[in-house]
Amino acid sequence: MLELHLVQNSLLKKVLESIKDFVTDANFHYSATGCSLQAMDSSHVALVVLLLRAEAFELYRCDRNISVGMNLNNMSKMLECAGNDDAIRIKADDGNDTITFVFESPTQRKVSNFEMRLMDIDSELLGIPDLEHHAIVKMPSVEFARICKDLSNIGDTVIISVTREDVTFSTIDDIGSANIVCSQNAAVAKPEEATVIELNEPVSLTFSLRYMNLFTKATPLSNTVTISLASELPAVVEYKIAEMGHVRFYMDPS
Amino acid sequence: MLELHLVQNSLLKKVLESIKDFVTDANFHYSATGCSLQAMDSSHVALVVLLLRAEAFELYRCDRNISVGMNLNNMSKMLECAGNDDAIRIKADDGNDTITFVFESPTQRKVSNFEMRLMDIDSELLGIPDLEHHAIVKMPSVEFARICKDLSNIGDTVIISVTREDVTFSTIDDIGSANIVCSQNAAVAKPEEATVIELNEPVSLTFSLRYMNLFTKATPLSNTVTISLASELPAVVEYKIAEMGHVRFYMDPS
Amino acid sequence: MLELHLVQNSLLKKVLESIKDFVTDANFHYSATGCSLQAMDSSHVALVVLLLRAEAFELYRCDRNISVGMNLNNMSKMLECAGNDDAIRIKADDGNDTITFVFESPTQRKVSNFEMRLMDIDSELLGIPDLEHHAIVKMPSVEFARICKDLSNIGDTVIISVTREDVTFSTIDDIGSANIVCSQNAAVAKPEEATVIELNEPVSLTFSLRYMNLFTKATPLSNTVTISLASELPAVVEYKIAEMGHVRFYMDPS
Repeated sequence: MLELHLVQNSLLKKVLESIKDFVTDANFHYSATGCSLQAMDSSHVALVVLLLRAEAFELYRCDRNISVGMNLNNMSKMLECAGNDDAIRIKADDGNDTITFVFESPTQRKVSNFEMRLMDIDSELLGIPDLEHHAIVKMPSVEFARICKDLSNIGDTVIISVTREDVTFSTIDDIGSANIVCSQNAAVAKPEEATVIELNEPVSLTFSLRYMNLFTKATPLSNTVTISLASELPAVVEYKIAEMGHVRFYMDPS
Repeated sequence: MLELHLVQNSLLKKVLESIKDFVTDANFHYSATGCSLQAMDSSHVALVVLLLRAEAFELYRCDRNISVGMNLNNMSKMLECAGNDDAIRIKADDGNDTITFVFESPTQRKVSNFEMRLMDIDSELLGIPDLEHHAIVKMPSVEFARICKDLSNIGDTVIISVTREDVTFSTIDDIGSANIVCSQNAAVAKPEEATVIELNEPVSLTFSLRYMNLFTKATPLSNTVTISLASELPAVVEYKIAEMGHVRFYMDPS
Repeated sequence: MLELHLVQNSLLKKVLESIKDFVTDANFHYSATGCSLQAMDSSHVALVVLLLRAEAFELYRCDRNISVGMNLNNMSKMLECAGNDDAIRIKADDGNDTITFVFESPTQRKVSNFEMRLMDIDSELLGIPDLEHHAIVKMPSVEFARICKDLSNIGDTVIISVTREDVTFSTIDDIGSANIVCSQNAAVAKPEEATVIELNEPVSLTFSLRYMNLFTKATPLSNTVTISLASELPAVVEYKIAEMGHVRFYMDPS
C-alpha cells in the first residue's frame, strides 16, 4: 500500500508541469526512500529523470516497491481541481488498477475524491552513472529560460561555449545570428543570482533549442539551473527541488 | 414608449453575459413592473428566465406592454462600447423597429448613440408554476462554478446527490471518476459563504455538465446560487440579482 | 558608419510596434539629423512616415547618408530579446549587409549581440508638402483608439464630421448604427486630456476603420493624437514622440 500526504499542492503541480509537455505516459516508481521517474520523450531524443525524496512529503508510506503508470495529462487535470490551500492525500492499494487523490479544503467542508485509472507501461529504471563533465555552469534558471526563448526567435539550435570567464549561447539562421555572453560572477549579493563556472576543459557544443525550451518548463522548481557539458557525453540540465530531489534532463549534443 | 436609465452599466453587462452564450435571439418583455425574458437554448434542452424589476433602473418608464426582439450578441457588442462609469439610457418608441442605447461619460463631453435594429421573434411568456422540490441547496456561486468546471475535466455529466448533511457532485468517465462532497455549514461568518440544505427527501439526479457550465456564466450576478431538485421536476438553478430580480435556469434530469 | 546608443529600449520597441502591422519590409534612412522612414502598406492604401531626430538617441553618429532595409518583424523579434533596462547600441558599417544590435544588462554581466541580415528595398523619400487642412482635431490618443475599436464592432467605415463645437465619429451597418460625439473642451486640468478643434470649414469624411485601427497601434507613443482633415486631401493622423519626432499616417477619404 502507498499513501502520501502533502500539505500544499503547489510542489506537485510544478513537478508535473515541468515534465508533462515532455512525456505523456510514465511510470512513477515508489520505494521506501522516495519516488522516481525516468522517461524518454516520444522521439527518444532526450531523457528526463525525476527524484522526489520521501522528505518532500508530510507523510510518506510505501510498504513495498511499486510502479504506478499514469497519463500525466489526466493526472494534471485532476491536480488542477485541488484548491491552492487544499491538503492532498494520494493513495494506491496493491493490486488495484487505480490511484486516488483526495483534496481537503482547510475548513474540511469540501472534500474531493478523484480516482484515476492506472496504465500498464513498460519501463525499467536504468542505473545512470555519475558522469564526469568538462564544464559545469550554474546560473539563474530564469535567465537560462529567457536566453533559450530569445534565441529560438532567431534559430533552431543553440551553441553553448564555455570558457573559464564566461558562457556564450549563440545561434545562426537565415535572418541573422545572435550570441549572448554571460560572465562568471560569483560575488553577488544573492547566491541564486550568481553565474558560476567549473571548468576542466573548454567546450563548445550544439543542441536543439526546441528541447532546451522543453527543459526550461522546470524553471518554477528552482532559482538556479546547472548545465553540465562534455563533448563525448550527454549534457545534463538539472533543476534541484530544494533538498528534496531534482528534475534532470539528459540530451546528446547534435 | 419605453425609456430606461441606469447609473452604471455593469449590471446590464453582467445580465447579458449570463445568458448570451445560452440563447442568441430573444424577446425582452417590458411591462409596468419590469423587464422579463424567457428563452430555450437552441437545442431546446433548458430554459432561462430573467426578471429585472423596475427598481433595478434609476428611471423606468413603460407606457404599455412591449416586446423587444434582440440579437444578444449585437446588444452585447453595443454595451461593450459604454465606459464603466457611463450613464446609460435605453429608448424604444412604439412602432419603431430600432432600440437606442445612449452612453454619456461622467463629464458629458462624450455622448454615444447606438441604434440597434430589432428582430421579430415568436415567443410568449409561459406561466411557470411554483414547483415543490424535494431538495434545495444554497451555496456560494463561485464554489458551484468551480465544481462544475473541475468535473468537466473528467466527465460529461454530473450526479448531484443531496442528503441532510451534505451535497455530493460526482462524475465518472474513461479516465477515472471524481466525487466532491460539500458539507452543510450554516454557521459561517459571512452568510454568503454558507452551504445550506433544505430537504424533504434525499435525491440523486444526473445532469449535463455542458449545460451546468453554461448556467454558471451567471456567477458574477450573485454571491450565492440556489439549486432546487426533485426526481419528477426540472431542476432550477437560480441566481438572485440583489433585491432586483433573478436569472433562473430550468433543466430536466437526464 | 552608423552608430546609435539608447539608454532604454522601450521607445524603439514602441516605434516598431506602431508600424510593424502596417508594413513588413522598409528602409530606414539615416542622415546627420536623424532617422526617417516612409512606407505604403502592402495594399497601397495608406502611407506611414516616421521621423526620429538625432536627439532621440543618447549617441547618434552617422558619417554619411545611409539607407538600411529591414524586415520589421525580424527587427522586432531581436529587440524583444533586450531586457527592459538594457542599454542598446545599434551599429552598421558601410558596405556591410548586416546591422548589429548590442544589448547590455545594467550590471554588464550579460551582453547580447544580434546581427540581422539587411534587405535591398526600392524606395525613395518623397518630399511631402505641408498640407492645408480644413479641420484639425487634437484629442487624447486613448480615446481615439477606443472609439475606432468600438465602432469596428458595428461597421467597417467611420464618418468623421467636425464642426466648431464637436467632432462626431459615426458608422452604420446591418445590425444598426452608432455615432459618438466628443465636444471641444480645452479647459481641462491636464492638457493631454483636452479635445481641441481648429476649424476653417466643417468637414464630413469617410474612412476605413480597419486602417484607422492599424494607425492606433501608435497610441503608446503619445498621450494625444492629431487628426487633420480636408475634403480634397489625404487625412493625416499624427502621433508626436515627445520633442523627438513623430509617426504620421496619411490616407485618402473613401
